[in-house]
This record gives sequence, structure tokens and C-alpha cells, in this order.
Amino acid sequence: MDIEKANAEATERMMEARPVLIGLGKAREVVPGMRDNLLLHAGPPISWARASGPMRGAITGALLFEGRVKDEAEARALVESGDIQLEPCHHHDAVGPMAGLISPSMSVYILENQTHGNKSFSNLNEGYGKVLRYGAYSEEVLSRLRWMEDVMAPVLADAIKASGGIDIRALLAEALHMGDEGHNRNKAGSLLFTKILAPLVAQVAPSGSVAAEVLRSMGDNALSVLNPVMAACKAMVDAAHGVEGSTIVSVMARNGTDFGIRVSGLGDRWFTAPVAVPDGLYFPGFTAEDASGDIGDSTITETAGIGGFAMASAPAIVTFVSGKPQDAIDATLEMYEICYTEHRFFTIPPLDFRGTPTGIDVRKVVEKGITPRVNTGIAHKNAGVGQVGAGLVRPPMAMFEQALLAFAEEYGV
Amino acid sequence: MDIEKANAEATERMMEARPVLIGLGKAREVVPGMRDNLLLHAGPPISWARASGPMRGAITGALLFEGRVKDEAEARALVESGDIQLEPCHHHDAVGPMAGLISPSMSVYILENQTHGNKSFSNLNEGYGKVLRYGAYSEEVLSRLRWMEDVMAPVLADAIKASGGIDIRALLAEALHMGDEGHNRNKAGSLLFTKILAPLVAQVAPSGSVAAEVLRSMGDNALSVLNPVMAACKAMVDAAHGVEGSTIVSVMARNGTDFGIRVSGLGDRWFTAPVAVPDGLYFPGFTAEDASGDIGDSTITETAGIGGFAMASAPAIVTFVSGKPQDAIDATLEMYEICYTEHRFFTIPPLDFRGTPTGIDVRKVVEKGITPRVNTGIAHKNAGVGQVGAGLVRPPMAMFEQALLAFAEEYGV
Repeated sequence: MDIEKANAEATERMMEARPVLIGLGKAREVVPGMRDNLLLHAGPPISWARASGPMRGAITGALLFEGRVKDEAEARALVESGDIQLEPCHHHDAVGPMAGLISPSMSVYILENQTHGNKSFSNLNEGYGKVLRYGAYSEEVLSRLRWMEDVMAPVLADAIKASGGIDIRALLAEALHMGDEGHNRNKAGSLLFTKILAPLVAQVAPSGSVAAEVLRSMGDNALSVLNPVMAACKAMVDAAHGVEGSTIVSVMARNGTDFGIRVSGLGDRWFTAPVAVPDGLYFPGFTAEDASGDIGDSTITETAGIGGFAMASAPAIVTFVSGKPQDAIDATLEMYEICYTEHRFFTIPPLDFRGTPTGIDVRKVVEKGITPRVNTGIAHKNAGVGQVGAGLVRPPMAMFEQALLAFAEEYGV
Repeated sequence: MDIEKANAEATERMMEARPVLIGLGKAREVVPGMRDNLLLHAGPPISWARASGPMRGAITGALLFEGRVKDEAEARALVESGDIQLEPCHHHDAVGPMAGLISPSMSVYILENQTHGNKSFSNLNEGYGKVLRYGAYSEEVLSRLRWMEDVMAPVLADAIKASGGIDIRALLAEALHMGDEGHNRNKAGSLLFTKILAPLVAQVAPSGSVAAEVLRSMGDNALSVLNPVMAACKAMVDAAHGVEGSTIVSVMARNGTDFGIRVSGLGDRWFTAPVAVPDGLYFPGFTAEDASGDIGDSTITETAGIGGFAMASAPAIVTFVSGKPQDAIDATLEMYEICYTEHRFFTIPPLDFRGTPTGIDVRKVVEKGITPRVNTGIAHKNAGVGQVGAGLVRPPMAMFEQALLAFAEEYGV
């Protein structure tokens, strides 16, 4: 039982994975196992009964968008009857930020890991304010989703096709040299993404006005690349999953109620524990009292060695998540303590181009008593409201302890 | 004679200047004092006889572009006859990178300082490789200039008009939080510029194909915003110029032969000394032996408190100009020693959002024996070749000594 060798292989696979954005398609047609009565959501499995406010709000919004219900009460009834089923995005090679809802009629980015061949998926980013992923489902939210599907998605699909594929690992490496950490701060990455797509959008759009609308929407959304980035991280960690004897974490995800992790050498089981409430900065008029528990698949970024782990690349982020630039450096330095290696392609200029801490080792987390640092948005605890802030959070130690115990049992060590 | 008060006023005017890009027009129609037999160039005044290789190459290219000559010998004859005259960009409210050639038929960005009302101008950026500003003038160079004039400029002019004005000070402030220093590294700024213009270009271009061509050209050129940035800096320092009793440097510029400075309280006279050759990294196949002397108006960026003075914002720049990320921090810290103040709007995340060193004080330069640090591209010393590298350079101390002496004489102190 050579755990070191297994972890070397898992992290090697994670780093060498090269996820390329190759297309955009309807979830119903391209996501494996997607079906008309299925909704995908962030985090480990959850029922309506145990779902948080923003998760219930987003489920309601997705069913309104699909034309299946008229309000939250109908949504609840439909889900509790079993006529609509809920499954984690992660069970379908997908990831979604915050509530992470992907319904059959939504378009998803399609990424292919060109080193190992696996695919991954994520939905389109809606921008800011009242948005489905934070549990809002007003007419404003739904009409933006409809515009995204009817106007933006066809143009993006053609533009991505015309691009011949966009290497998201290369884009991320560049963005980390421009003050992004790839999770809460995707300003440079979104500009790079918009820059690559702009001439293609101008070329393929049905008119100059539509091209302008799509480019304005992408360019003005500093998170427009977040979803392809998350899917890219999913493709990377999936490549690292399933290595016999490896203690490397291959998924971290939250549904607003439970935090869940998976471990490379421990198959598809989830290790879960109740989520914490993030610490952070609140929008005017909101306080920690309003915050939902930690939610979203976006912790896939930290799992792949960016986000909270690459804070040192993004000193300006402290204006958004609180703290001082030195805290950002310290956050990255702390994460080296619990990671197996340093990334070959993601490097940090202020640390002399040192690679980001990559491959969370469950053993180190438990031994050192250091949990991963995670950047995150903060949703309102009630359905229908939306984002109230952004900040930092730690996953519960209990999951890592459970996983280590399971590893000892599984491998008899 | 309250020098401190004068310097406070000069730097206050420099920082409060708010240059907005308001249009694009032909130099002949919009640059004050432009005429058909005039070429503008970088740096202090120069004759053909004393001009460096890249300056001669760029003059030849500009005259070829104007259809006035057939080769370098004809260009020389025309300039030496006095039928074509050479004057500094700075004598016409303009600036140009490297050789800085602006000929009557070239389009220029028009900026207006919306605080104090003065205007400034700069030409379009050509991108990389064989380009006029580095002294190249092959058919490849000329055909790109023609495409820029015939295809790109009309679209950009309409797009800028449709934008209602682009606040370049705000753009720069944001770019400094994304790893730019605004002189050699304008990657984030160029993406922000492209992002703002993209929907407008898509809207106003005569076809999707032309929009795509223009957007590809802007997006793929990480210096596309350099020229508007330089013009913005020119508008800022011009606002600081002419304050009675001020020892603040209001222009630093090089023509490849001489470095020249102007001082706020000393009117329009130039203080000059021979240029140095930059230290830096050379492209494959070239060495310091191939380098021209320091050239270009782009030192207007350092004069306004960015560029080499904001190196601490741009740790990744060391891969381009040589050194370690700590050298970038040290460069900025050293410049605080010779500056009057710290910028109100340009701040540096890794230094806890401290303002950039702003307003070079001739007295401090001479007293402390510290000359400004300048980032720069490096041109080949021969006409017709182009860029061979990028690096760092210091202006000659002699100019600052001359200026201080002149100040003492002028004001009797």
C-alpha cells in the first residue's frame, strides 16, 4: 500500500488534465443521465425537507423556468411527490455555482479533458443581483434566464464551435498572473474569455445588435468565465478520482445544508457534515443574521488548487471578501501545509512563481488540524432573495476524519 | 517662494485631471498646429543628422505611408531640405511610443481632461513584430498601417463616439489591480479597453467580418490601450505644468539620441542629455550590441506616477523585463524617495493599497542621487529592423542637475 505513490499519480493526473471548452448544448441532450423529470443541484444529495432557503428558491425557479409549476408550493409538492427528482450535479459530471441548479432545458458548457478524455459540464453564468443560483426566482430572474437560452446560448454555441476549442487551463494560468484566484475573483479570466469570444460572436451573431447584447452581457459580468472554470476544475479532479490507495480529496461541495467531500481512493461515497456560515463582507442592509449556510459546487476550484488556495495571486480580492493583502499571502502559505504538491501550470507571481498548493491530502488535514480555506459568495437564508455578501469559510473537520477512518477500514491501514 | 505649496498644487492638478477618451480623428484635422509638411516624433527636438537608426527608420516609414518618398535616401533628402519638418509630439499636446511618429494622415485618439479642459492626442497602436514605432518600414508595416487607417480607424471612431467617452483614469486604476503597471504591461488595461469597445464595435461596424477583424486586432494586442493611456498621462502632466515655483517634472521623453525633461515651474524649455541603453531581456538572436539608445514618449507614464513607478502592482512583469518579483516591489519603494506625493486614484494592492509614487521632484532626484526608474521596449539600433527586447533604464542625472540650476537662477533661490 504505497499511499505516496497513489497520491503522486492522482495529483499528476489532476495537473496534466487539459480541459478545453468544446461546445454548448442543452442539458437534456448532452449531460449524461439527464432526463425530463430531473433537476441537478450543488453539493451532496439533499431532499426538499432538508433543503436550505436558497436551494428551495432555486429549485422553484428552475421549475418555473421549465413551465412545470406556478409557485413555490407547487414546486414543493412536485418534488415531494417524487415526480421531479433531485440529484447532485456531481453525479452527472457537472458542477454549478451556489444552488447549482441545472434543469433539462438549460444550456451547459461542454468541456473535454484532452489528456484523459473525460467530459464535464456547467451552466451559463447569470451575472449579479437577483439570480437563480442565489435562490431568487422573480420574473426578472426568469426573463434573464429566457434571454440567456433564447438569444445568448445559440450565439455562444456557434462562437465556441468556431473557436475550435478554448483551453481553460491556459486561460486560468494567465488569469492567475492578472490578480484572479479563479473562484471569487474571475475578473481577468472573464475578460480573457470575452476577448477570445468577441470576434467570433461578432462573426456568427444574426445581427450587430445581438452581438452587442451578448458581448455586453459577457463583458460586464466579471464572473462570466466562472462556470467554464468550474467545469474545467471538475474535469481535472475527475481525472484524479479513482486512484487506488490515494488520500487526495477529489470533490468538495455544499448544498446549503451539508458539506460533502469525496476522496480519490474511496470511490463514489460522500463524507458529509453540516455546513458553516461564511465570514465575510455584507452588502448594505444585510448582516450575518441574513446568511444561508455555505452552498455551491464552486469549491471545486479549491479542490483543483485555485480559489482560496491561490489567494496570494489576488491581493485586490480583500476588498471583496475582507482582510488585508498579507492575509491573502498567508492563506496560500497555510494551504501548502495540507496539499500533496505544487501546481505545474498555475503559478503565483508574488511568491516567485511558486505553483499553487494542489491536491488536498486528507491525512494532512487531520494530522495538522488545518481545514481547507474556501472563498465563497453568501446567499440570503430565505428562498427568493439572492446574494447578500461574499467571504471565507472552512469546511467541517468531521468529514475529513470520517474519510480517514473509512480509508483505514477500506485499506486495512 | 513657497516651493512646497507650488508642488502640492502641481501634483493635485496632476491627480485630479480626469482624461476621457472622446474621439478619434485624422492628425491633420485635430492635432493643434499639424500641417501637411510636418512629422511629429518622440522626445525633445532632433535633426535627421543626429537621429538614431529607429528614428530615421520611422521617419522613412511615415513618409512612405504618406506617399511622399520611395526610400530612405529620399526621406533623408526631403527632411534635410526642410520641405518636411520634424517637431516633438510634445509641442503639439501629443505623445507617441518609441519613435512616436505621427504624420498628417494618421488617426489619433483624442482625450479631454474633464477637470481642467486640456486635450491630448496619441496615435493607434500597431501591435508587435515589425512595426513603425520601432523603426521598421517594410511593405508589411505599411500595409498594416493602411489597414488601420482604412478599416480599423473608422470603426473605432464610431465606437468611441457611441461610448459617450471612456474614462482612462478609471480604467488605469482598475488595471493596476490586475497586474498591470501601465507602461510595459498593459495586458489587463487592453482587455478592459477591448471589453468596453467590443459591443460598440459589433454595433457600428459595416459587417460582422469587419467587427471580427477589428476586435481580433485589439484583443490580441496586449498594448492596444498603451496609446490612449499615454495620451491620458499627457493630459494629466499638462494639467500639472506651468505652476509657478514648482519643481515637479512634467515631461520625460527620449528621441533615441537625447533624453529630455521639462519642469512645471520652468516653462517650455527642455533639459537634455544623451540617452542610455536599456538593461533588459533580448529576443532570441539579439543582444545588447543590437540595442538602440533609449527612445519614446512612453516615459510620460512614469512622469504621471505609473509604469516603472507602479512596478509593485505588476509582479508578473519580471518575466518580460528581467528580475525577481521582489525587485518590482523595491522599484516602487525607491520611487517614493523622489516623489512629492502618493496617488489618490492609482493604488497598489500588494502595498496595502498605498498610492503610487507621484510627481517627481527635481530637488529630491538631485539631493538623493536617485534617478527615476523607467520601463521600456528596446529598438534595434539600425533603421528598418524593429523591436529586439524590453527592459529597464535610468534617465541621465545631468538633466535634473541642469533643471535645478535653472530653477535656482529663475527664482533666485
